[in-house]
Amino acid sequence: MTSTTPPDVAAHVESLIPKFQLTRLLNSDQAGRRISLLGTIDSQDALLIAERAAFDTSDATTRSFSTSLQNIKNLGANDIYAWFLANSNPSASGTTPPPPDFKLNLIYPCTPKHIKKYEKQGLRVVHETPAIYKSYTRPYIAAQHAKGTLQWVYNILDGLKEQDDVMYREHGDAGFLLLPDLNWDRVTLESLHLLGIVERRDIWSVRDLTKRMAPWVAHMREKMLDAAVKLYPQVDRDQLKLYVHYQPTYYHFHIHIVHVALEAGMTQATGKALGLENIIAQLEGLGSGEDASMADVGLSYNLGERSELWEKVFLPLKEGREVRVD
Amino acid sequence: MTSTTPPDVAAHVESLIPKFQLTRLLNSDQAGRRISLLGTIDSQDALLIAERAAFDTSDATTRSFSTSLQNIKNLGANDIYAWFLANSNPSASGTTPPPPDFKLNLIYPCTPKHIKKYEKQGLRVVHETPAIYKSYTRPYIAAQHAKGTLQWVYNILDGLKEQDDVMYREHGDAGFLLLPDLNWDRVTLESLHLLGIVERRDIWSVRDLTKRMAPWVAHMREKMLDAAVKLYPQVDRDQLKLYVHYQPTYYHFHIHIVHVALEAGMTQATGKALGLENIIAQLEGLGSGEDASMADVGLSYNLGERSELWEKVFLPLKEGREVRVD
Repeated sequence: MTSTTPPDVAAHVESLIPKFQLTRLLNSDQAGRRISLLGTIDSQDALLIAERAAFDTSDATTRSFSTSLQNIKNLGANDIYAWFLANSNPSASGTTPPPPDFKLNLIYPCTPKHIKKYEKQGLRVVHETPAIYKSYTRPYIAAQHAKGTLQWVYNILDGLKEQDDVMYREHGDAGFLLLPDLNWDRVTLESLHLLGIVERRDIWSVRDLTKRMAPWVAHMREKMLDAAVKLYPQVDRDQLKLYVHYQPTYYHFHIHIVHVALEAGMTQATGKALGLENIIAQLEGLGSGEDASMADVGLSYNLGERSELWEKVFLPLKEGREVRVD
Repeated sequence: MTSTTPPDVAAHVESLIPKFQLTRLLNSDQAGRRISLLGTIDSQDALLIAERAAFDTSDATTRSFSTSLQNIKNLGANDIYAWFLANSNPSASGTTPPPPDFKLNLIYPCTPKHIKKYEKQGLRVVHETPAIYKSYTRPYIAAQHAKGTLQWVYNILDGLKEQDDVMYREHGDAGFLLLPDLNWDRVTLESLHLLGIVERRDIWSVRDLTKRMAPWVAHMREKMLDAAVKLYPQVDRDQLKLYVHYQPTYYHFHIHIVHVALEAGMTQATGKALGLENIIAQLEGLGSGEDASMADVGLSYNLGERSELWEKVFLPLKEGREVRVD
């Protein structure tokens, strides 16, 4: 990337930056990775907007990445998952290190399934009819349960693991606990991201919600909002957005609670996220009795081309081949 | 931010990171600000996911930000605008500096209008009940129509304006036209973004869709998909995602058609976007007869604190004041 500016102009504008005197922070957005600073240069107003740059993905840089890190500080660990903050900056080894500029997640040892999840892949939009759900998706989810892939959630619910991370807990029919999402730094309120994990184990996904359960879902919504604003009194109720994923990463009903200012990425996008209030409204509006459920409606969503559901269900359906879930 | 991990566990997982040996880069996403690396630690597979952290926005750090920068390199300059790369890292001053980790924009001198544009606007989550819609939102929309704010859309539909941009057109009850979205470069297929604007003028927003109209919406969906893949044969039907906004930017029914790989931001997020297929499913599921409509369900969405609907409707409601729409 070479400059197109004449050298004298480049030298001039480069000399302006260190003269910038802060007046105030105007904004911090893009998940806190951009800041807009108002200040003055030679007594005239100036705006300085700074963004974290993209990673250099050259082979040499990625190869030395893990050994170049300074001041690696573990934030939490559970089973094969551990998360950290770290610095790119050598002066971080001093007594007053600069703020960390990397968040790290380590999965070790990892499985081929983890690799698949993090590898770049094409996406497809699928339409899951009630019949497809019943014949293929639900049996697929049941197979995941039978394999014991939910054990880590049950360990948390049973108080066996990650109890220090549990920020709030309530028992009973409307029992749930709140955990910080792995992607949240646990500090920046505007990127607050909590997970509300319900205690009951009979709801595998949004598909299991019935019209009869609409008041329960609405009640869970209120309780989780109550707990979140109690934990973070600086956040107002109407600054929190609740949604669920379909398909979720794991098949035990959980609700994402995020600050409305959190940079919206794929995790909040249509095709992945369903607004909780809109689900409640959809359940309430369902026409065919109290047992009518989200299993009776069509749901469209995105799938990665390497996801099991695409490979085992939707690609065979598209190609007119036989579907074998297990 | 303190770790919740026992010190010996923390020390162990921290010692794993420098032992990570790269196998290959799996992905670079979040606008390049996250990388997923596959490697090995003691011959076992490991995944290391690194993200650029949020800026530290403490007063001390922001105050010294401009003077802490190393290796400031101008990329371009035009009038009051200049853009740069820079390093946070002191070793950047050496002969082989590490890759820059900041992008900077300088606007100097800047005007109050620039400041307003970059200053944070808070967002609020509002829940629009059918009663609020009927009493306040619908009259607000009617007032927008009465003011003639839709004239530019009618000019396009009537063939009077922007005809060079119309990529596809069909007349009749299921008539519509396709335009490129302003944010699309019209070239990059993976960021394809079209607008499908319907010809009929009686649908101001998703709120006007009734159960009776579900087949019409489904038909429009098919027609728009047909047209899009005819225009861009390299794109498959199941690589296209359709959604509508509520609140929309203008109150004439239009559908967003995007490539599923398009980086999902606020435009696709829950609280703003509603998946078209899910709307069709919700309409079909409605219980109270053919005239049941989206006006009868609750809808939650985000509003900017400087938006008219927040200032005129939802803030007064929150504060128990009288609502005056006009």
